[in-house]
Amino acid sequence: MRQVAVIGIGQTKVDEHWDKSLRELAGDAALTALADSGLDRVEAVYVGNMMSGSANHQQHLGAYIADWIGMRGAEAFRTEAACSSGAASFRTAVMAVASGMVNSALAVGVEKMTDSPLGEITGALATAADADWEAGQGLSFVSLNALLMRRYMHEFGWGKEHFAPFSVNAHANAMHNPYARFHDELTIEKYQKAAMVNDPINLMDASPIGDGAAAAVVIPLELSRRVEGHPTVFVAASSAATDTLAVQHRKDPLFLKAAYLSGKKAYEQAGISPQDIDLFELHDAFSIMAALSLEANGFAERGQAPRLAMDGEIRIDGSIPIATRGGLKARGHPVGATGMYQIVEVVQQLRGEAAGSQVEDARIGMSQNIGGSGSNIITHIFKRPD
Amino acid sequence: MRQVAVIGIGQTKVDEHWDKSLRELAGDAALTALADSGLDRVEAVYVGNMMSGSANHQQHLGAYIADWIGMRGAEAFRTEAACSSGAASFRTAVMAVASGMVNSALAVGVEKMTDSPLGEITGALATAADADWEAGQGLSFVSLNALLMRRYMHEFGWGKEHFAPFSVNAHANAMHNPYARFHDELTIEKYQKAAMVNDPINLMDASPIGDGAAAAVVIPLELSRRVEGHPTVFVAASSAATDTLAVQHRKDPLFLKAAYLSGKKAYEQAGISPQDIDLFELHDAFSIMAALSLEANGFAERGQAPRLAMDGEIRIDGSIPIATRGGLKARGHPVGATGMYQIVEVVQQLRGEAAGSQVEDARIGMSQNIGGSGSNIITHIFKRPD
Repeated sequence: MRQVAVIGIGQTKVDEHWDKSLRELAGDAALTALADSGLDRVEAVYVGNMMSGSANHQQHLGAYIADWIGMRGAEAFRTEAACSSGAASFRTAVMAVASGMVNSALAVGVEKMTDSPLGEITGALATAADADWEAGQGLSFVSLNALLMRRYMHEFGWGKEHFAPFSVNAHANAMHNPYARFHDELTIEKYQKAAMVNDPINLMDASPIGDGAAAAVVIPLELSRRVEGHPTVFVAASSAATDTLAVQHRKDPLFLKAAYLSGKKAYEQAGISPQDIDLFELHDAFSIMAALSLEANGFAERGQAPRLAMDGEIRIDGSIPIATRGGLKARGHPVGATGMYQIVEVVQQLRGEAAGSQVEDARIGMSQNIGGSGSNIITHIFKRPD
Repeated sequence: MRQVAVIGIGQTKVDEHWDKSLRELAGDAALTALADSGLDRVEAVYVGNMMSGSANHQQHLGAYIADWIGMRGAEAFRTEAACSSGAASFRTAVMAVASGMVNSALAVGVEKMTDSPLGEITGALATAADADWEAGQGLSFVSLNALLMRRYMHEFGWGKEHFAPFSVNAHANAMHNPYARFHDELTIEKYQKAAMVNDPINLMDASPIGDGAAAAVVIPLELSRRVEGHPTVFVAASSAATDTLAVQHRKDPLFLKAAYLSGKKAYEQAGISPQDIDLFELHDAFSIMAALSLEANGFAERGQAPRLAMDGEIRIDGSIPIATRGGLKARGHPVGATGMYQIVEVVQQLRGEAAGSQVEDARIGMSQNIGGSGSNIITHIFKRPD
């Protein structure tokens, strides 16, 4: 199997981009990644997107984006796995290059959510849950996560205030990320006074939707030696796993089994253990998901992630920095693009380009993108060569 | 690169399956393919689907189907490339196994279109065209193809009646396919009397939508030697290419450039030329598309495909049999599933399981799935080992 390197990254700010069409958003990130890579052309374009069919009345994004960025003729299609659509496009690019069938590929995640009526977006988000057993019964993702958070608090004896450090950390890091949606400091007091959305989830536990796109260019590692430019970053692991679509079908809904499986495979591929990870871009769509992700991937014992957060271990200078560029909570969560933002941010860290929230001497970073309530998990580990 | 073999196939009848949910349809085809393969489990499930988000209020089909068919834990996501979504799922499976990252994969194409109001389906189909420059101006796929057909008739001097043999052949072959939507003989007279849909496209030039699913299981060729069961069929080529999304942006709209590029790459990979192909499952969504596909892939000179059809060369016993199990026209066109039906049908032919419309001693077969009006083309060539 050929090893795969990331040689270009690009992203737009997560925002309400009412002046940009879907193709312009994706194009901006894609062309930035291409310029960063030094390549004029790629053989394949894989587009991660969840809801353009309903939100933008446009599907077929492979040809749509390839055409727009001047890659006519290139192979192109879209990958969809709800909120893990972005990482699915990257994994497809990695498999394509690793297989030898493709020598250069661009993965771009894009979502444009803020131009559509909010009810339509809520309906589109609900298509990630089980239409028969969840969405059809009136469950939204906020309510599913609220049920999980309440049960977690009950099982492990935490209060709501113990989740504050996840959001405080995300906002603190986003202050230094020009591409983040929010640049406001969050204090414990502000967190405690935030409006309740779905008890116990308040506004500061929930990530915001947004418009945005992020992209990366991959080629075989052996072709990636660059005369000038960035340090090489390569894909040390790429793995994916699923769980039941409906949360009610899980024996233990507080353990993200697919995250555990996907993380375990990734550690094996990379030949490392959780202790070797210098930073972890996890999927903090809600603060409870940050906690469950840390536990499933071996960074905290069951029920003990809030303790890790309160001890400051998730901060830039902690033992396992998370949401180093703001995470979903403060960088923002344009759903089908999020997985690519996470990957771009890990590469920034490994290149030493994360000014203001740089993890010192970061050499190994992990990203983990979640679709649904832990139903689909895609994990990547990146390394700088020794 | 590891070579990849197809060891299991499955399909449902294309029909109005009002008694089956989306997951049951996909599950029926997937479990049939698994049983046919002899495997209990696959490591990955890739789902080709175009419009379940709007037609069935369900996305996230990777986890949805993996869960339903008992493959919890497996990697799974959806691929979308409009009407070429099915072949995109198969290509993803081939790349995954070829890369060595996955040892067994199931590709399943599924679409459930007939339970939704027809206006909704027409709207969903239109998301495959350019929302700004085509669909937003009122162009549907029927009207786009009508424009192409009219121009073709003008350029090359054919009458409408000269397209009849494409549909007559498709219906004749479908009579022998229990999974086909139609089992009615089509005569030239019936074709000529068919209701006009969008001049010059009449009802007998257009493929019907439908509900259906088709699936295949792939593993590395070196692991595919089977003690009993079917002859081995392997993937000799897998390739994809795109053209502009909007037809108006093409210099020569009557030449399917992406089909030419994708076909050329496929011939090179397989080390063959068009003359070596024993049968060709092409994308006859409209009879004009059958003609353009034959020309772009080297089976007829520009403007001469109707002659090939009138000479009977596209029949089972002709020089290049097409739509051997009914094609999109008579087997039916459940859009995101179609590419997988084509692949399953080629495998049936190479195994000698196409009773009634078996191409004698078929050893090399090609499938070509088209998204949009020639905007995305995915080609596969299958062979029996010598």
